[in-house]
Amino acid sequence: MKIITVSREFGSGGRELGKRLADELGFDYYDREIIDVIAHKNGMDPGYVEKSLEKGAWQTVPLTFKRSFVGPSMAASAKTGLLLEQKKVIESVAAAGRDCVIVGRNADVILEKYSPMNIFVCASMEARIARCISRSEGEEKVSLRDMENNIRVIDKNRARTREMISGKKWGERENYHLTVNTTGWELRELTPAVADFAKRWFERTK
Amino acid sequence: MKIITVSREFGSGGRELGKRLADELGFDYYDREIIDVIAHKNGMDPGYVEKSLEKGAWQTVPLTFKRSFVGPSMAASAKTGLLLEQKKVIESVAAAGRDCVIVGRNADVILEKYSPMNIFVCASMEARIARCISRSEGEEKVSLRDMENNIRVIDKNRARTREMISGKKWGERENYHLTVNTTGWELRELTPAVADFAKRWFERTK
Repeated sequence: MKIITVSREFGSGGRELGKRLADELGFDYYDREIIDVIAHKNGMDPGYVEKSLEKGAWQTVPLTFKRSFVGPSMAASAKTGLLLEQKKVIESVAAAGRDCVIVGRNADVILEKYSPMNIFVCASMEARIARCISRSEGEEKVSLRDMENNIRVIDKNRARTREMISGKKWGERENYHLTVNTTGWELRELTPAVADFAKRWFERTK
Repeated sequence: MKIITVSREFGSGGRELGKRLADELGFDYYDREIIDVIAHKNGMDPGYVEKSLEKGAWQTVPLTFKRSFVGPSMAASAKTGLLLEQKKVIESVAAAGRDCVIVGRNADVILEKYSPMNIFVCASMEARIARCISRSEGEEKVSLRDMENNIRVIDKNRARTREMISGKKWGERENYHLTVNTTGWELRELTPAVADFAKRWFERTK
């Protein structure tokens, strides 16, 4: 079984690259699908699950003794619970034994024993802002400064969550097999380049 | 003209990968050749040139007023002068207009206007130590701890030199088009994977 995990900076196009990669290779694709399963199992709204998982609340995590208090620790506990749920769902995806691409959700750490190929996707801040603008067309206007700020906050939360659950740094080159900078690429042209690299990774003899 | 620059962590196999890449693509290859030109032009010993460029002396760089003193600033000045020489040689290599791979020497920064493809090569510390051990077979034994220490010092000097001349961080993912982790690869199998990726980079339309 071949598993590719895609971690990414917000706005780098990593999610789209992951989807295209799955299509190109004929692999299953998991991203929001995981959220939907968690939501369905727990009778929650998928939007709520996604927001809770992305937000930063859990760096203040309870540490059990806090658990009986109300306030921020409630949100933190919710996040901790959802992270555990997410871990279970990701493990069950892998246990199903089908080739797949999983975007985000620290799948590289959770599925370490399956020796996935781990890809990190980045881009220059200018390129990331440009992508966010093109995505948000028709929506409420956000200033460039606020957009850059949003990007930094989201990445910071991803980094913190990762470091808390794994002790491994988010985005650090040694933790990934390949770090791809999407700046200057059309994703449809980048996809076969990464797909070919991945094929060779899975065929290697070492 | 196509230029590929290869920056690398010490012990990652980046130099060998660069050489193999040049062979695979039929590009010229520059690495120590640059040192030889500088040495020849200045009537110096290549070994001296190489050592002077690698060492950390120049973070204490003169700042002109110091120039008349003796002591550490002498070594620092020598390094500054050699770095300028090196810059000129690298520029003349590019000006010759032939496809080439250049390993190290901040060629990615120096040749920015030629839009080179910039690759960074890394590996886990364990893999780097193993590579250094296999390279040094037959030489004097160095303890693992000393070897790890050497690796860290060399990388630190590379990072400092780079930051001083470019203001850009060494090894930071946004500054390279592709960051390749050689851990788990045979370089002979990794080479065509990177070469194919590079071909697609030079053929892209964006």
